[in-house]
Amino acid sequence: MPQTSRSGCPINQTLEQIGDRWSLIVIRDVTFENRRSYGALLEQNEEGIASNILASRLKHLTASGLLTRSSDPHHKQKGVYSLTEAGIQLVPLIAHMAAWGLRHTHPSKEASLRAELLEKGGPSFWNALMDELRYLHLGAPRPAHSALGKLRRLREDNR
Amino acid sequence: MPQTSRSGCPINQTLEQIGDRWSLIVIRDVTFENRRSYGALLEQNEEGIASNILASRLKHLTASGLLTRSSDPHHKQKGVYSLTEAGIQLVPLIAHMAAWGLRHTHPSKEASLRAELLEKGGPSFWNALMDELRYLHLGAPRPAHSALGKLRRLREDNR
Repeated sequence: MPQTSRSGCPINQTLEQIGDRWSLIVIRDVTFENRRSYGALLEQNEEGIASNILASRLKHLTASGLLTRSSDPHHKQKGVYSLTEAGIQLVPLIAHMAAWGLRHTHPSKEASLRAELLEKGGPSFWNALMDELRYLHLGAPRPAHSALGKLRRLREDNR
Repeated sequence: MPQTSRSGCPINQTLEQIGDRWSLIVIRDVTFENRRSYGALLEQNEEGIASNILASRLKHLTASGLLTRSSDPHHKQKGVYSLTEAGIQLVPLIAHMAAWGLRHTHPSKEASLRAELLEKGGPSFWNALMDELRYLHLGAPRPAHSALGKLRRLREDNR
């Protein structure tokens, strides 16, 4: 987090860390699509994030303690990004953002499916998703069922 | 909302509307402090928002359909800002932001009180708060109990 905050309000301090559109788009792609490298985050991003913006946001998110960067064991110069526990705990916030977007924006039908499942699933689904992210990013035990798989199948079935 | 979106993802579209730190700070002050004029939002903001940023965000939030602007009946040139239903429905998202901030940033003790009450209160408290905002901003009936009053008293008692 930044060395000096503009105020002690926890809403403000959260916004200082993630209150930037592109930061949360990157977190979304790491979380739901398991895109872990600069290349995947750049090339597969559907909003067309610019390379300089992606680089600056990855640096910012790493400095803020939401992502960590390690080297790919097979390609030392390639970085692999992982969510931290703080980053994983953004799931309920992102789910609320998706729920609000369903009601008050004009999302595409395909993109709405994930948001609908996230909303219907509620806190128990978010917890299952966070457990799976702890497995994928932090080395925790693998959960019996895959919440991400459920999201993925839903999208594939509707393609 | 913007005429063209970068993608149909409801998370992206939500971020296009409010994915800016200062926009949500303004929404926070309108929501929790009932600051309804440009002057109050500028002078009382504890993060020290700059006048040009405030002006541009008020314009953006009004164009996005999160705030409406009407003229003060006593001072025609003075604008009064009100939340729309879409703006009011940001309460659960702001509550999650506050809860995350409590855990993963370093908020001041005083500023944490509101966040703690918001979190402990859960969805039933958020609904009471949204009903009170509908009364204050949209002319709905006045609720029997004031959720905002509860938040305010908590802060005054701890000063």
